[in-house]
Amino acid sequence: MTENHESHYTENVQEHLQQVQHLLDKHALVETLAHKQEMPRAERHELVDKLLHKQHLAELREKLGSLHSADVAYILEALPIEQRLLVWDLVKADRDGDILIEVSDAVRETLIATMSSDELREAAERLDTDEIADLAPDLPHAVMRDVFKSLSIEEREQLRSAISYPEDAVGALMDFDMVTIREDVTLEVVSRYLRRFDELPDHTDQLFVVDRNDLFKGVLPLHRLLVNEPDVPVAKLMIADTIKLHSNEKAEQAAQAFERYDLVSAPVLDDDGRLVGRVTVNTVVDYIRSESESDVLNLAGLREEEDIFASVWKSAKNRWMWLALNLCTAFFASRVIGGFENTIEKFVALAALMPIVAGIAGNSANQTTTIIVRSLALGQITPANARRLISKELAIGVLNGLVWGGIAGLFAYYLYRNALLGVILTSAMLLNLLLGALAGLLIPLLMHRMGRDPAIGSSVMLTAITDSGGFFIFLGLAALFMSH
Amino acid sequence: MTENHESHYTENVQEHLQQVQHLLDKHALVETLAHKQEMPRAERHELVDKLLHKQHLAELREKLGSLHSADVAYILEALPIEQRLLVWDLVKADRDGDILIEVSDAVRETLIATMSSDELREAAERLDTDEIADLAPDLPHAVMRDVFKSLSIEEREQLRSAISYPEDAVGALMDFDMVTIREDVTLEVVSRYLRRFDELPDHTDQLFVVDRNDLFKGVLPLHRLLVNEPDVPVAKLMIADTIKLHSNEKAEQAAQAFERYDLVSAPVLDDDGRLVGRVTVNTVVDYIRSESESDVLNLAGLREEEDIFASVWKSAKNRWMWLALNLCTAFFASRVIGGFENTIEKFVALAALMPIVAGIAGNSANQTTTIIVRSLALGQITPANARRLISKELAIGVLNGLVWGGIAGLFAYYLYRNALLGVILTSAMLLNLLLGALAGLLIPLLMHRMGRDPAIGSSVMLTAITDSGGFFIFLGLAALFMSH
Repeated sequence: MTENHESHYTENVQEHLQQVQHLLDKHALVETLAHKQEMPRAERHELVDKLLHKQHLAELREKLGSLHSADVAYILEALPIEQRLLVWDLVKADRDGDILIEVSDAVRETLIATMSSDELREAAERLDTDEIADLAPDLPHAVMRDVFKSLSIEEREQLRSAISYPEDAVGALMDFDMVTIREDVTLEVVSRYLRRFDELPDHTDQLFVVDRNDLFKGVLPLHRLLVNEPDVPVAKLMIADTIKLHSNEKAEQAAQAFERYDLVSAPVLDDDGRLVGRVTVNTVVDYIRSESESDVLNLAGLREEEDIFASVWKSAKNRWMWLALNLCTAFFASRVIGGFENTIEKFVALAALMPIVAGIAGNSANQTTTIIVRSLALGQITPANARRLISKELAIGVLNGLVWGGIAGLFAYYLYRNALLGVILTSAMLLNLLLGALAGLLIPLLMHRMGRDPAIGSSVMLTAITDSGGFFIFLGLAALFMSH
Repeated sequence: MTENHESHYTENVQEHLQQVQHLLDKHALVETLAHKQEMPRAERHELVDKLLHKQHLAELREKLGSLHSADVAYILEALPIEQRLLVWDLVKADRDGDILIEVSDAVRETLIATMSSDELREAAERLDTDEIADLAPDLPHAVMRDVFKSLSIEEREQLRSAISYPEDAVGALMDFDMVTIREDVTLEVVSRYLRRFDELPDHTDQLFVVDRNDLFKGVLPLHRLLVNEPDVPVAKLMIADTIKLHSNEKAEQAAQAFERYDLVSAPVLDDDGRLVGRVTVNTVVDYIRSESESDVLNLAGLREEEDIFASVWKSAKNRWMWLALNLCTAFFASRVIGGFENTIEKFVALAALMPIVAGIAGNSANQTTTIIVRSLALGQITPANARRLISKELAIGVLNGLVWGGIAGLFAYYLYRNALLGVILTSAMLLNLLLGALAGLLIPLLMHRMGRDPAIGSSVMLTAITDSGGFFIFLGLAALFMSH
């Protein structure tokens, strides 16, 4: 990654955010600029420049200039849209590309929307090919065509290959900044070769040994280069038995390999064993973080990461699919209750107790699913132990049914002085907990077998089953045994 | 980390798991051993050895011997308890420590339970001090005392300091394997110094420059050592403006710094600016993964990571707290409904419709909380923009209330041919969505201000509010306007 290594590092970027916000607040022009938001960027820039004699804005520009690109990206994320665009205007144009790479998709969209084709082209051309590939989906076609033309033949090939991989393939995490050497030279020769570089690519912890056809032979860790005498040949020190990633593999596999083996970089080979790129730990960290974030977002039924300052309309759209699905299942559950209106009319206590049956089983089923989804992701569930898990979860269901169902039954008996009602409540909770345990186990297992991500959508199905199932079981039992 | 670098690496550890399971299945002794589970480890070991002439067990031992410690740990996680202990017995004793470090807390407990004090002491003594500190909570006091005695004075100091930090402090992530140099020497001298090492510590991407009092001066990246001429002095090439972590800082801050700046290692200083340790990216990756996992587990109300093969009793205990809390809120909601039994008796349709009001608002509030918790974790929410977020979430609540409440109202009107009922349902949903939006925003903000983790327990409070609130609003409106 082409980064500005001379900018300041900080453990606590939030201090910088507060300083920037303070400067923005002091700067009364914010409101004026907010009105000009619809202006093209160039004009706004002009206006901003005209006002640059204002001290606060100059201070702000200076402050931003001293920050690392990643910190500017962080600050842009945390600012409301009009302040964000003001800050974006003040950032030096030659860092645009680096910053666009760092911000989230939602914020990137708002920034790109204000840039002209020329600005976008210039920003993209300053990036490495693997970074251009990351930006590609957000860039207009015409810009991408121009950028493509500006690249060397080798770079075009890299860009084409980087764009071609699906988001969850190792190829999408890959960069092309590897240093390669031959096995028949000595460390002395390698050292002299390295001294011809101004700078080694970031995260170069090992050199890749290839033959003249780019066939991968092994790696030479920099550590070995440093602790051994200069006259030893590479062939003697290189490690052939090292982790080798393949560009079509799942990215998650690569991430797990980085975690297990504490890697900093790893070679990526094509089907013929040729070295085509490398994956570095910083990309893996970003991948792990974004995967775990989308897990949490998906659990709440959010389709994508949300810019907290996005418009009401945009945020609502992000959340609607889920609410619509839930409304459908709620309508269904409502019709299940509707079918027992006669029974409820006679024993109105049923209406007060039925949410208990549905709620506890829903929570318990959700716990089961969470554990299963996690084990599936780690590949810990095999056909050999699936049956064992089913009996275990059913046993927990019985235990929970007796304990919590028993307590609920006593609660009902105490309130309504009706032993039969208590027994029916306990039985309904027991049965619904078993139903929930089965559903909580089988839904993710089936989704996994069908090749779908079990983390997405499991919970809406679960709730549908434990709600409707709970109402049906409880009201059904009551209709059977209490109507006489 | 002291690792066996000659063992095999693999992208796909699941293949190995399947091979091990296959060997275990072929091996009919598993059942026999399961009965002996209560024997002390030494006796079982003897028994296992006696049976070692059996070909499958020998094959299994060989297979395990060829695997990387991290892969053995992975396989142990994925095996049911009796097979796990059999495999654990077959693993060479000198890798026990490495493997104990790699497995999850729940599985570590099951492994340690089978080991004698001597075995535990030997395993611990083979580890680095920062690793011993990780194991410490699981080791018996007597073992820890013996281990402590076996250490050098410097190591004792390290161990004491590593144990003293809370789990979420930078100090808990720290190791002591840093290579330090002085600023007044040339690269030539540094290179000669490094050649005296057999091996550099893992993740050494930079050397730490200190003065004779251990005061931190800067870092010398290995890259600079490699690309520059030998006669340049360290002082000219070292970077003083680099990230500096502090041992008492929050680990999450350090993790975010690693992500933002793509670090491989970072120095840790004490309050006087003395270098006390370093943090490396592999520890940060583990930290990020375990944090994101506990987020997901906490959302479902699981207290801790669960060994999927733990006993029913143990698993149930892990899940009970949450279910008990939910039962309490369900009882409360039930009493709210109970207060309107007269109204429900007259209009039994209310019973069928009320779960819709509660459910949709609960889901919507949960979405709000998820977004707020994420922004809080990133430090993006400041007093300056909190008010703006409140108006935005309320606006989304109004929009959702009109859209989904409207649809639900039409549904009710269509089913029951009662326009007033439809209007009441729509109004109740609108009001409850607003209540949910407020609760979804304020609960995590308040918990954060009180210094508590907003990800834990927010959802049980939310459900309590949207359930009870929803029933109260809907039934209350109905009682007011439909009783005439």
